[in-house]
Parts: sequence; C-alpha cells; structure tokens
Amino acid sequence: MSSPRSNKPKIVNGPGGYILQDVPHLIDYLPDLPTYPNPLQDNPAYSVVKQYFVHADDSVPEKVVVHKDGPRGVHFRRAGPRQKVYFESDEVHACIVTCGGLCPGLNTVIREVVSSLSYMYGVKRILGIDGGYRGFYAKNTIPLNSKVVNDIHKRGGTIIGTSRGGHDTNKIVDSIQDRGINQVYIIGGDGTQRGASVIFEEIRRRRLKVAVVGIPKTIDNDIPVIDKSFGFDTAVEEAQRAINAAHVEAESNENGIGFVKLMGRYSGYIAMYATLASRDVDCCLIPESPFYLEGEGGLFEFIERRLKDHGHMVIVLAEGAGQDLMCKSMESTPMDASGNKLLKDVGLWLSQSIKDHFKKNKMVMNLKYIDPTYMIRAVPSNASDNVYCTLLAQSAVHGAMAGYTGYTSGLVNGRQTYIPFYRITETQNNVVITDRMWARLLSSTNQPSFLGPKDTSEEKKELPETPLLDDGAVDIPPVTKEVTK
Amino acid sequence: MSSPRSNKPKIVNGPGGYILQDVPHLIDYLPDLPTYPNPLQDNPAYSVVKQYFVHADDSVPEKVVVHKDGPRGVHFRRAGPRQKVYFESDEVHACIVTCGGLCPGLNTVIREVVSSLSYMYGVKRILGIDGGYRGFYAKNTIPLNSKVVNDIHKRGGTIIGTSRGGHDTNKIVDSIQDRGINQVYIIGGDGTQRGASVIFEEIRRRRLKVAVVGIPKTIDNDIPVIDKSFGFDTAVEEAQRAINAAHVEAESNENGIGFVKLMGRYSGYIAMYATLASRDVDCCLIPESPFYLEGEGGLFEFIERRLKDHGHMVIVLAEGAGQDLMCKSMESTPMDASGNKLLKDVGLWLSQSIKDHFKKNKMVMNLKYIDPTYMIRAVPSNASDNVYCTLLAQSAVHGAMAGYTGYTSGLVNGRQTYIPFYRITETQNNVVITDRMWARLLSSTNQPSFLGPKDTSEEKKELPETPLLDDGAVDIPPVTKEVTK
Amino acid sequence: MSSPRSNKPKIVNGPGGYILQDVPHLIDYLPDLPTYPNPLQDNPAYSVVKQYFVHADDSVPEKVVVHKDGPRGVHFRRAGPRQKVYFESDEVHACIVTCGGLCPGLNTVIREVVSSLSYMYGVKRILGIDGGYRGFYAKNTIPLNSKVVNDIHKRGGTIIGTSRGGHDTNKIVDSIQDRGINQVYIIGGDGTQRGASVIFEEIRRRRLKVAVVGIPKTIDNDIPVIDKSFGFDTAVEEAQRAINAAHVEAESNENGIGFVKLMGRYSGYIAMYATLASRDVDCCLIPESPFYLEGEGGLFEFIERRLKDHGHMVIVLAEGAGQDLMCKSMESTPMDASGNKLLKDVGLWLSQSIKDHFKKNKMVMNLKYIDPTYMIRAVPSNASDNVYCTLLAQSAVHGAMAGYTGYTSGLVNGRQTYIPFYRITETQNNVVITDRMWARLLSSTNQPSFLGPKDTSEEKKELPETPLLDDGAVDIPPVTKEVTK
Amino acid sequence: MSSPRSNKPKIVNGPGGYILQDVPHLIDYLPDLPTYPNPLQDNPAYSVVKQYFVHADDSVPEKVVVHKDGPRGVHFRRAGPRQKVYFESDEVHACIVTCGGLCPGLNTVIREVVSSLSYMYGVKRILGIDGGYRGFYAKNTIPLNSKVVNDIHKRGGTIIGTSRGGHDTNKIVDSIQDRGINQVYIIGGDGTQRGASVIFEEIRRRRLKVAVVGIPKTIDNDIPVIDKSFGFDTAVEEAQRAINAAHVEAESNENGIGFVKLMGRYSGYIAMYATLASRDVDCCLIPESPFYLEGEGGLFEFIERRLKDHGHMVIVLAEGAGQDLMCKSMESTPMDASGNKLLKDVGLWLSQSIKDHFKKNKMVMNLKYIDPTYMIRAVPSNASDNVYCTLLAQSAVHGAMAGYTGYTSGLVNGRQTYIPFYRITETQNNVVITDRMWARLLSSTNQPSFLGPKDTSEEKKELPETPLLDDGAVDIPPVTKEVTK
Repeated sequence: MSSPRSNKPKIVNGPGGYILQDVPHLIDYLPDLPTYPNPLQDNPAYSVVKQYFVHADDSVPEKVVVHKDGPRGVHFRRAGPRQKVYFESDEVHACIVTCGGLCPGLNTVIREVVSSLSYMYGVKRILGIDGGYRGFYAKNTIPLNSKVVNDIHKRGGTIIGTSRGGHDTNKIVDSIQDRGINQVYIIGGDGTQRGASVIFEEIRRRRLKVAVVGIPKTIDNDIPVIDKSFGFDTAVEEAQRAINAAHVEAESNENGIGFVKLMGRYSGYIAMYATLASRDVDCCLIPESPFYLEGEGGLFEFIERRLKDHGHMVIVLAEGAGQDLMCKSMESTPMDASGNKLLKDVGLWLSQSIKDHFKKNKMVMNLKYIDPTYMIRAVPSNASDNVYCTLLAQSAVHGAMAGYTGYTSGLVNGRQTYIPFYRITETQNNVVITDRMWARLLSSTNQPSFLGPKDTSEEKKELPETPLLDDGAVDIPPVTKEVTK
Repeated sequence: MSSPRSNKPKIVNGPGGYILQDVPHLIDYLPDLPTYPNPLQDNPAYSVVKQYFVHADDSVPEKVVVHKDGPRGVHFRRAGPRQKVYFESDEVHACIVTCGGLCPGLNTVIREVVSSLSYMYGVKRILGIDGGYRGFYAKNTIPLNSKVVNDIHKRGGTIIGTSRGGHDTNKIVDSIQDRGINQVYIIGGDGTQRGASVIFEEIRRRRLKVAVVGIPKTIDNDIPVIDKSFGFDTAVEEAQRAINAAHVEAESNENGIGFVKLMGRYSGYIAMYATLASRDVDCCLIPESPFYLEGEGGLFEFIERRLKDHGHMVIVLAEGAGQDLMCKSMESTPMDASGNKLLKDVGLWLSQSIKDHFKKNKMVMNLKYIDPTYMIRAVPSNASDNVYCTLLAQSAVHGAMAGYTGYTSGLVNGRQTYIPFYRITETQNNVVITDRMWARLLSSTNQPSFLGPKDTSEEKKELPETPLLDDGAVDIPPVTKEVTK
Repeated sequence: MSSPRSNKPKIVNGPGGYILQDVPHLIDYLPDLPTYPNPLQDNPAYSVVKQYFVHADDSVPEKVVVHKDGPRGVHFRRAGPRQKVYFESDEVHACIVTCGGLCPGLNTVIREVVSSLSYMYGVKRILGIDGGYRGFYAKNTIPLNSKVVNDIHKRGGTIIGTSRGGHDTNKIVDSIQDRGINQVYIIGGDGTQRGASVIFEEIRRRRLKVAVVGIPKTIDNDIPVIDKSFGFDTAVEEAQRAINAAHVEAESNENGIGFVKLMGRYSGYIAMYATLASRDVDCCLIPESPFYLEGEGGLFEFIERRLKDHGHMVIVLAEGAGQDLMCKSMESTPMDASGNKLLKDVGLWLSQSIKDHFKKNKMVMNLKYIDPTYMIRAVPSNASDNVYCTLLAQSAVHGAMAGYTGYTSGLVNGRQTYIPFYRITETQNNVVITDRMWARLLSSTNQPSFLGPKDTSEEKKELPETPLLDDGAVDIPPVTKEVTK
Repeated sequence: MSSPRSNKPKIVNGPGGYILQDVPHLIDYLPDLPTYPNPLQDNPAYSVVKQYFVHADDSVPEKVVVHKDGPRGVHFRRAGPRQKVYFESDEVHACIVTCGGLCPGLNTVIREVVSSLSYMYGVKRILGIDGGYRGFYAKNTIPLNSKVVNDIHKRGGTIIGTSRGGHDTNKIVDSIQDRGINQVYIIGGDGTQRGASVIFEEIRRRRLKVAVVGIPKTIDNDIPVIDKSFGFDTAVEEAQRAINAAHVEAESNENGIGFVKLMGRYSGYIAMYATLASRDVDCCLIPESPFYLEGEGGLFEFIERRLKDHGHMVIVLAEGAGQDLMCKSMESTPMDASGNKLLKDVGLWLSQSIKDHFKKNKMVMNLKYIDPTYMIRAVPSNASDNVYCTLLAQSAVHGAMAGYTGYTSGLVNGRQTYIPFYRITETQNNVVITDRMWARLLSSTNQPSFLGPKDTSEEKKELPETPLLDDGAVDIPPVTKEVTK
C-alpha cells in the first residue's frame, strides 16, 4: 500500500510480458475505508444483466496489434461498475467543472455524469463549478439535477461555463474541502488534466476522501493513449461545410483558392480527417509536417502547378501549422491562460503571403479565407458522439463510486478504461507523418511531402526503431496512438 | 498446404492460448504463383512511411478484454499492404458488385476500391457488375475508373445498382472465368457474404487465380465479429430526425404517441443506438427482447401508465421486433429474394393494435406513425463513415493484391483485419439483452423489461456461461460481438 | 353602423372600380367604446420611426395585375398599428388557441403574439388554451409570458397543444365570458377559421367587447386570398429530403420507383412546389388534376414508358389525389374531427396497385414508398418563415388593439392585411391546372396531363371566362389565388 | 417609336394617375422585324393552359399600398410569354454571363435559362461566357445544354465562373457581334446591371438585333424596385448557423461576446433579417444606422450594460457598417474591380477595438469572432429560392423571345415584371431606419438607436415627406422598396 506521498506508478506484471499500468485507489492512503453493495444490483434496468459488475481482473491492452510470440505489453484497468462501492448515495457530494475551449458533446457529458450519479447511484448533491477552475474559489456553484440537465445535450457549449487557466491548487482543494465535495469530475484538455493530476496529489497529500476523475476533452484529438476524444467526429463532420464552401468558391473563380483554417494547435488530426473525408482538398498542412514556401518543392511552386493543372485548389491548414515559418522573427510566442502557445493567426498570415506572392509575380489568383473554428466548436454533438459521451461519463462515475481516483476515463481499443494521469500528461498525441494514415492523406491530395530526400531519411532515423508491436498506423477513425519522444 | 477441396479453417496456435484464425491464400491451391514487389514502395505518397508493409505476424485479438492470467484467445490476420504481391498491375482485372438494400457509404466504398486499385496498384481494368449478383450473367458490365467515381461519395445509393438474390454460383463463376476477372469485390450483407463464400469455394475447386473478397454491408449492424458496419453511424444520425419529429408530434397532441419504425430485421442495434443518442424515447422494442401487449407488465399497460405520467410518449420499434406476436396466426413467413424473412409491416400492425386498444377502452390517444427507412438508407455517408469506408476499401484491395482470398475485410477492435468467411456467416450479431448496453437502454427509457421473473432467470440460464473473457458488454459505439447459439 | 345581428360584408366603393372589402370593428356594435393613445409612440424602438401608425386609408389590392384602363378591383384594409387603440394595457386579457395538424412556425407565431402584446402593448395577462377548441371548456389554461415563450421558436410543434374538432360555440363563448377574456387569437386551418367566424358572430350577438382574430395555418396552403401560409416554405424544403431519398433508391434499383406521399388533402401546392424545387420528379399527382391508371394515356402506361426510357422514376403524390379512383366502391368518405375527409391512405393503395400491375405483367419493378408527413409537420420553421410568422403575429395584435375583430390576418401581395372571415371560409385555394404554374410543372416532369382532348376543351369551358384582371397565374412562391366556383 | 440614339424612358400614362414605366423593344430601332407564333402553343405541357400568353396590357404597380382616392402611381410591364415572338428557334444564339461574388441560386438560374430556351423555345445554341465580363473577349465560351446543366442546381457557385470588373463595352459588343450572339443574359449585382445597360445602349447604337436582359443578383439585397433578390432567403437561413454558434460561445464564457460579421456592403438587409429570424441577437449594426463607440449612448456603454445584465451577448455587424468610424483617418477607400468600396475588414477592426476597450478598463471579456461569408455565398439555394430562380429565369427568357430588351427581369409585389435599367441603376435599396421594419429590429434586440434626440428629428426631417402612397414599411420578407434621395 503506497504511502500518500509517493506517486510512483502502480504496475502489475503478468505472464508473457503482460503489464498492467493501474490507477490509484482511495484505499492506497485510506486503507480502512468501508465498502457498500453497489445500488445497481437493485436497479430494475440492470436486473436482466447477466454480469453487470466488471471482473476485478478485466484489463484492456494499449497495443492491440500483437504477434503470436510477441510480448503482451501494457494494459489498462477496464472501466465499469464494481460489486463494492466506497461511497453511500447520500454521502456523495459531487462537482463537475469544464475548462478550456468549447467542444461538441460537453453538455452531453455533463448530462450523463449527472444522470448516472442520480439514476444509478441515487446521488442527490451534484454541483456545477461556474466557469472553469476559477469557479472553485471565485464563484457560486450551480446546483445540477436530472431535470436541469434533461435537454442540454441538444445544445452546444457548456451550461456551467468554461474558462482558461485559473488553476490555483491550494485555493481549489481548500474550496473542495470547505464545501465537503468528495467526487470531482474535471472535463478538459491536456493542460486541464495536468491540473487534475496536481489537485489529486494535493488531495492525496491531505489524505482526503475525495475521488478526482479526469474526462479528456480536446477537439484537436491531441490527448495520447485514448482512441479519439469526444466531439472529434462531430467536428470533422462540421468542417465539411467549410471545405465544401471553399471548393465551390475556388471552382467558381479564376485561379480560385479556397483556404480553410481548422483547429489543431499542436496536432493536425481534424485537418487530416476532414481532408480524408472530403476528397476535395488539394493540400493539407499540419503542425507535424513542416513545409516551406519559396523555391523548389515549396508550397508556392505546388500552388502554381495545381492551379495550372486544375484551375482551382483547396488548402486546409491546422492553426498550429507553419508557426515556425511565421514566428522566425518573433523571439517568444505568447501563451494563453491555459498555457497553450497564443498562436498568431497563421491562417491570415499564410493567406496574405500567398496573395503577396501572386501579386509580386503578376498572376491572377482569387483566394477566399474561411475560419469556421467557432461554428465547429459550438455545435451539439452528433448521434455517435452522444452515445460515446454517455458511455464515457458513465464509466467515469462507476470508477469514482468504486473508489478509484487520480485517473482519466478514456476509450482504448474500443473499451472504456481507467488511465493513470501520468500517461495522459507525459506526451501529446501527434500525427506520425511516417505512418500509413499520413501516407493515405498524401495520396488523396497528391500534395508534395515538402521533405527533401535528406529530410525523409532523417525523419525516419529520428523516430526510434519502434518495437515490433508498434504498427505505427491507426486504421480506424480513432487515430494513431504513437508515443513520440 | 491444404488440398483445394478441403475448406477446413486455417488455424495457427501460439503460446498462452494464442489462436490465429487465418484466411485462405491463392498459394493454398496454386503453390507456384509468382510474386512481384509491391508498387507502393515507389509511390511518392508512401516514400515517407517508415514501415508501410504490414509485418507478416501482425494479428488482432477478437476479444480485447483480457486477464493477466487468462488465455490470449482468437486473433485475426491484420489487414494492410504486403511487401510481395501476387498480381502485376496490368494483369489485374477487377470487378465490384453491390447486393441487397441500400446503406450510406456504398458509393464511398466503390469509389475507394477503384481509387486504391488505380492509384496504389496502377490497375486499369475495373468493372462494375450491374445490379447485384444477377448482373454477372444477365447484364453488361459498367467500366469504372477514378474519373467516373470521383464525386460519387457525395451521393447516396450505389452507382452500379443493386438487387436481392440472383445467386447462381455456376453462372457467376462461369462469367468470372469468361471475362478473365481475377479480383472480385462483393459488397453485401450476411446473405451476400454466404454467396461470396460459395463463389470462393467454386473458384478454389476450379483452381482459378481469382481473389474473392467480401466487404460487409448491413445497415442493421447484424454481421458478427466486426466492430460495426459502415453507414451505421450515419443511419443512427439520420434516425434522430424521425425521433425528433415523433417527439414533437407526441408533445403537441393530447395523449400523443410518436411511433417510429426503424430498420433491424433480426437485430435491434439501430433502434438501440438511436434511442440512446436521442434521450426522448420512452420505449425501444427490438427483435431480441420479446414483449407482450395485454395484461400485467404488458406494453399496453406501460403505454397507459406513461401517458398518464407524461401526457405523451415516443416508441421506437425495430422492423423485426414483435414478429412472433403478429405472425402467431400465420404458418410461414414469406422470404424475400435475399433469403431474409419477408416481414409483414409490424409497425403498421402494432400501431393499429395500440389504436384499437385505446378505442376499445374509450381513451383519447393520438398516434402518429413514422417510417423513415428509405430516408435513412439513401443518404450519403457522413464524415466519419467516409473515412471508415476509405480504410475498409483500401484494406480489401491490399489483401487481394497480397494473394489472400475467401475473406471478409472488417474492423476488429479498431483495426482492419481479414476474417474467414465461416466466422462471418456462421452466426448473427444480435443485441444481448443480458448485457450492460441493453441495461443502459432500459435505464434511459425506464421501460419495463417485459420479462417476468421466471423469464429473467431463464434468460440468464439460456445463455451459456460465457468464458471469463467474455465481457458481454460493448462499451463503444461499435457493439457487442456476442456469439449466440 | 351595422346592427349586431347583420353580418353583411362592409363594402366601401371608390373611383375607377375601387372596392374595399372591410372588416368588422368593435364600434360596429359598441359605438361608445373609449379610445386610448397607442403606447407604441412611447416605445424607444419606435421613436425613430417616421410614420409608425398606418394611414387610415391604406389598402392593398387583391389582384395586383392591372390594366391601364381596367377596374381597380377588390382591396383589403392594410394591417399595422393605429394611432388610437381600444384597449388599455392592463385591460387586455388575451388568449391563444392552436387547432388542427402541426405546421412549422406554430411556436414562432405563439411566441410573437405574446412578445408583441407584452413588449409593444404592455399586456401582462396572456393565456394559452390547452389542446385546441376543446381546451376552452375542458382544460385549464396555460399562463404565457415572454420568458415562457423565449426559445420556443427553435422547436417544432405547439407548446399549448392542439387537437381537431371540439368546437362547441356556446361552451367556448361562455368560457371566454367567464374568464373575462377580451382578445382571442385563433390559429388554425379553414375549418378552424370557420369556427372563429361562428365564435365572432356569437360574441357580436352577445355584444361582448372581445376581439376575435384568425391567424391562418395550413401546411397544404389551401386557404384562399393570402399569398401563402406560414410554414409552407419550410415544408417544401423538408420535402426535398424525401424526394432525394426516393430518387437515390429509384436510381440504385432495377426499374426503381421512388414513391413519395406528401400532404395536400384538397390542394396539391406542396406536391407541386416540392416537385418544381427538386427537378428529380417524373410525375406529380394532385387532387386538382384527375388521372386514371389503366389503358392508353393512363398512369401505368406512362410508368412503363418512363422506366423503359430512364430505368427509374420518382412519383410525388398529394394525399388527396386519386381519392376518386380509390373510393369508387366506397359510398361515403369518413370525416375526421375537423370535418376534413378522413382519407384512406391513397399512397399505400396506389403503390400497391402499381406493384400488382407489374406483377400481373411479370415485369421487374422495385417500388420504395416514403411518407415523410410527420417529419415535415414537426420541424421548426426556417429563417424566412420565422420572419414571416413575426410580421403575421404582430399584425394580428395591432388589429385587435385597434378594435378590429372578426378578421383573418394575412399576407396579400406581400403586405399584411385584415381579411373578412367570409372571404377565407367561402372557398378553397386550389391549384388551377389551366394555369401557367401547373404548365411549368408538366414541362418540368414531362408527365402526361392525363386529360384526353375532350377533357381539355371541357376543362377550359368549365372554368368561367375569368375577368381580364385574372391572370390565373401565380408567379412567385406564394401561389395562385384563383377563386373557383 | 424612339430613335436609336435617345434612351428617354418609355412612359405610358393612364386614368387615375396610372403611369407605366415601359421597357425598350427591338422594334424601337428595328421597326420591320418579322414576328413568329410562339412555339409554346404547340408544347404539350402548355396545351391545358387556359390563357398562356400574357395580355398586352398586363402591368404591376410598384407601390401596392393605395388609397381609395389616391393616384394609381407607377406600374411595370408584366413578364411572361407573348403570342408573337421575334426570334425563330434556330435563329437564337444565346449567351449567359455571371459576374461578381457568389450567391446561392446562381447555378439554378443558369440551369433554368438553358432549360427554358431549349424546352420552351427549341433553342439549341446556348453559350456560357467563362468567368464574368472578361470572358467575352479573353476566354473561350462554354457550350451549354440541358444535359450539361441537369444537376447543377444541387451545387453552389456558378459552373461558368465569375469575376469582378473586366467591363470593356466595345470589346464585349464586338465579341457579341463576331460570335453572332443575339440574346445576352447578364446575371450580376447593381454594378453589373449598370454594365448591362451600357452594353444595351451600344447595341442599340449599332442597331443590332440583340436582346440584352439583366437578371439581378445581390446577396446583400441592395437592388431597388424588386421585392428581394434570389438567394437572399437561403443566405439568411445559413447565417443562422453562425449566429447560433456565436450565441453558444457567448453563453459558455464569462462575459462572452459572440461577434458575427455578415455581408452587406451598403445595406444591412441580411444582418437585419438574420437578426429578426434568430431572436438571439443583442445588437445589429448596419451601414444605414450610424453608431459611435465611446461615451454616453455609445456601443461600449451598451455592451458593458448588456454583459452586466445577461452575462453574454451576440453582436451582428454588416460588413459596410461603421466604415466611417474606421476610415476617419484614411483619405480614400480603395475600390474593388467591380467598383465597390474595398472595405477594410470592419469586423476585425471593431472586435479588436472592443477587446482593447475592455483590456484598458481591466474588465474580463471573451470575444469570439465569426465570419461565415463564404460559407453562406457558396451553398446551393434552398427549395423556395429554387422555385424563385426558376420563375425569374423563365420570365427573362419569355421577355427576350418577345423582343423586349434593355430590361432587368424582377419580382415586384409577388409578380415577375420587366423593369427599365435606369430604375435599377439609379439608386440603391437601403434599409430605411425610420421605417417599422427597423423598429421591429430595435424592439427585438433592445439595442439603443445610437441616435441622440437631435439626430432623430434631423433623421426624420432629412427624409422628404414621402407622398401618401409611401408606406415606408416593408411587411414581408421581400423588403422595403424605399427610394432614397
């Protein structure tokens, strides 16, 4: 039983190279906590379920592509209801906080955390923290119940408001303690999950009976380990409207360029998947794939050639792409309150650079710039994301009730699991440009790789010879889970 | 090397209970076939890819929830491009056939099979078989190339037409032989995949160098082993329009009932997921969950109670649900040309029965009946289904080029795999009503299970004590892969 | 000043054949009613308006196509705020009732009647009558204010419920009297407007200071005099989804027929406009244009020819079309509670007849039947209908406040007007098949007119030589206002 | 018969103040042109039409609100097929050109001009001019026929391309003459219609038998006389997506401001109608209604107050609003190739000014900027706009075939008419802020009028006491036709 101070990962080894990266539990530092029978067993809806409690040993492999004789590798604890719970219904005093930018599905997750707590576990005291971390100590709370949240999944945004930053660990844990809150559901991106991990450590240090649960929210899909983040499918769907408009504007104007800036600060997943889904895109620029403008093999050359061949083209740019090109002159890149690089609008910068290039060379070109960012973030989640959010929220609640804490609830290889914070916060989920998914993209746009031969070999060298298991390729809409250095 | 006549499953065993259910290969019965380097390695788009050829031993587990000490279980061969191919580009003469009812994404799959063959493998001779199996011997073929298919993913339906039945093995294989076709891509449901398996056996019997590849299409999502079928997400999304309309009509009328009939001949996945995604449904009736109308705990009693409580309700019914109730008087159920039970319209029958019940009991009730079937089947696939269809089609082509044959290409635990025909055709993918997913449904609608206590225990007894590994539960939008007798 | 008993039309004549068909006013039978300054003049939003009160003589011609030397014809009083009002804000006790089938925009009209009464006229007592006419005497009322109605325009249906029939004049007027209601806004179709007219007569007979205002609601667009009914544009838009699906299903199947049944009990406007907007329809069948099935020039012959030429076709049928064919054997057609013919489902009947015909003649044919009725009625109104409903509701309120009563508020030649009840209830707005709009339809589908030569001349003879003014043609989305016998 | 040089308006006076502002005809300067029977009379679709040729005297009043004793005012010639035509089918050599920015419905108008010419008048030679006016002399033409245009109404944009400027009268008329073109259909905004009028004058000067027909296209709806421009309804509908997103972003963030920039260079119709249709907008800024930022009654003060009251707000800004504020320092405003002021992006400027104001005053505020311009311009037209475009295109063709020329085809009071060029080009259609429609807007947003008391009286004085007929108010989605000085 690990001492409260130590936050050493809980590892369980097994035959054939089996490794379970387990998650902390309240009894790690409160060994004598009482347990109670899970109220689910008396819930009529669950009376027919043959095996409603997850088996203690159920686990899910991080890598699903294996070899007959290969090591079984890392596994995570499977999510779901346990036979014993560590909170009585009336004892639970839960709170939910949403941080960072909007993302389709936020309201659905809030709705389903509230509904699961009330319908499955009979919990009555649920609070919304108003407007992100800052709300813990600077605002009143928002009482939540199934009636208040009944229809919110049909509206975009978050009914409890959000903001960036405002993470003051002590003030937050003090407020949790003062208010007698004992379950904290933290919905946010990687910055927010880092905040959750620090809150968990402080709560463990103070030996408080408080379960801290992270629910990953990133429209950019840049959180590692999980298959994909909620709202990603809805975002790729909405992005099609902007790409269709760009394609029509480009086709209707002489040397027309439809230029669409999409989300993707550090990783180009939305740009990549929106491009693959559309088939009308000629060039997709993402942070992970450096490019250059001038000279042979550069972007300007490719644009001129494509306009000459087709008379029009569509460019999709992730907001984090080409930052280096733009920022060469600037010393430091300002940060926003969530600690993310405050990116200059590379879309406006690059579209202006293209206009200047054609003007300088006296070539007719009509560029139409479209930035649908907020029209994508603010829509309600579509049907498949609604079901996704429902299962994600229910899993988060089952885990807290079962006493687990300090984990992020997430989908791994199609199964809900509990993932230790450190695996979520230690790296970022980036597109691997030496991977077949990016090759599919290149072959669908026929754009140059913007990598000279020297770079290609370097690119491959740079990436460590990944163990056999690594397939480096993600085959399904949920995307490559490639661990970069 | 198995003799051409034997269609014994190809099984490879490994340590820790590892089992690979492998798929047939051309060299099983044509051992001296020459091989050629995969043209992909000279494809610029793939030049950056670090490891573009799938490792010979890559395999994917059927069950992803494992225990530290449990057996590793059944695996399938992983899909993707191989170093060696068994067809030269100019040698390939491919054909594509679409069978059965429409499903969003059919045109995207056709487009991507054609694009993969032409762009990745330089294939020029690709034919569409006009209007299903019958087209092999009763119709002219439809020349397909990347220009013809360029925009078809933006339209619903299938540009090469479809039909039910028309499976005459000898006529089909004769036509394949006469036309010199050597790659056959067969897109259809379980009936069609059974047809594909018979075609494959006949081709193997005749020792023809013809790769036979099944691509599973079932809007009902009733094909086993695979996570979910293409078009399923789009269908669940479109179904929301009908459910929203039913909810509005019900709310606006005294004792209003909105009654929506959805697809689902033998399995209720669309009805279940559409219900879970909507949250406005009071009762979801599926083939797997028997119900009864009259008397205590029956549907009529529940309807009366729910109308009394809320003043309105929404009922979603899968077309195959309640057939037994309706057909009690009829001896046999007529079959359609695809061998599927020609179901009487249980929707019209049940809605009329409800109207009669209320009329008989002189109770005001306004029932509005909505059947959106064709408005769901005929839409183009949404963005995430588009990407899904792309990867599915590319995998099917990689397999054929690599000499594999007699397999269905399918997504298993998020990875593209090659699955032996017998695993696809031996059972059906049904909702397991003793599973947590159905429990989630019941708790979201608060409908009765329509199972008396006797039935519940029976229900559990009936289902064999599934091995530890079976979690019986599907956590993600792709759904339970539960093998029923 | 006409005696309360006489309901003789109020006609005002003027030079050049000018005729004003005026509407009743409270002072017709309560001559000494006091007047008050219109509170609008102190409303900040209206302070900038140069001429916010409508000129007493403003009128709008019913026929807008005129000749230099022709008579100026019938005019209606223009809607809008008057300088003097006949109700003080606190005196007003308004109620709103919605009757008959749903229609996009119902909630927007309710919202805007409530908002206009409260924001423009400071009215605080507004009631919703629950569930149609019956609600006056069989139900409690629903308090309405701007907060309750704030967001309802984003949802389909009617928040105060609707029903058919239940019109008991005395019970209704008793309830109006007992509750001290003095403004009654009645939203419904022609049957409902007839009810409104009878209520008005009874109120006038009882000399009550109660303004009775009709707001025409008919998704079929079959109410005479007005340009088009609210929700009509939204309905034609939604119908495109069903027609697109029918077209895709038809194209994908051998001899495919996509068969769409649309609303249109007595008039085929939705079917006609949905066909014109889509351009994928081969045959549009409406109540006004008789057709026959068998033999030369019949529907069956046309279907066979079109399938032979194109291989597929789309048929759009208005629910009231072909009733005669179907009902030949039945003596009387049952009526629904609103007095409308309870039509047998001609769609199911005709589609079955087509299937039988092809079966009998052993011809392959695949017919897919789509009835999107409730998926069209239940959607919220689109943007242009939202603005339409706003102006319509505001006009209705201005009229009542100005003491007008016994009128239907309606759009005539693009202007809001007050129309006497008798002009709304005396006839029905049918498609005139000898008119250029129907000719446009025939030329867009290339369907036969199903009129033998004998019928054509008869058809023309039958229709009286309409006066010069009548152009019999409607050029704009709002449609022909042809007065039939 | 006016001499070719004189372009004096053709006026016909009649009793009661009747004035017909007629349009030029080919026989004005080619008196001996032969006529031919209209082929429509043999068209089967038109055989049933009772009165398919428009009566010679049919006319439509510009002002539809009249008084019993008032003058009948200005009328325009009614559009439609005439008994006699001035071109034989094979003689016609038509061309279509689209100029200026994209607008929903462009492809539908192109489709219907081509379909009307070919189906109604048997014309086979129809050319598309590639990419605007410049295409006449700098590009090859694009052959058009009903097959080429069959499905284009389902795609946004213009299949014959567009551009701004490029108007060289002599080069254009030379090219018309050289190619033997005798019907020119010019689709564009007010700048383009001015170009059309100059082309017509040059053709009349050269006594060429060429009909020049203008079809008004302006997504801003700023063309005078006509009710509304095609695509306007679709644009207002699409704008709702941006406003909904702005509202969600604003509601979810502390002191959230959703800021939407919409089209509207000189007139704020789209901003006004999108605001009225949405009901979520707090402030609508249009070019016609000046505003100021600082100090009492300014925009900053209003924003602070509204954020204090509601915690969030939505601002809609037409691109031409506030230009004066921004351009105070700049001497001249650069023009684009169509002669339109090249507006600095006032949206970016104003949103930055708001951010700076709150930063300066250390007040938390989260502003999200949305510019959906190209996502609105590029969508296909909705159903009601499709029917509108169909009637507009057919009317344009009927007029040319009947020998009319030098006119713009347009909808006036719900009827298709032929309007002299000078009435279209002499003024602009602006929102009249002393009109009830703007008052409705102010009362729906509760925004200040930004007019001090001095300005209000001035504003009213400024506008001449419009004659009785002027109702200064637009009641229907088609909008005020107020003639400004």
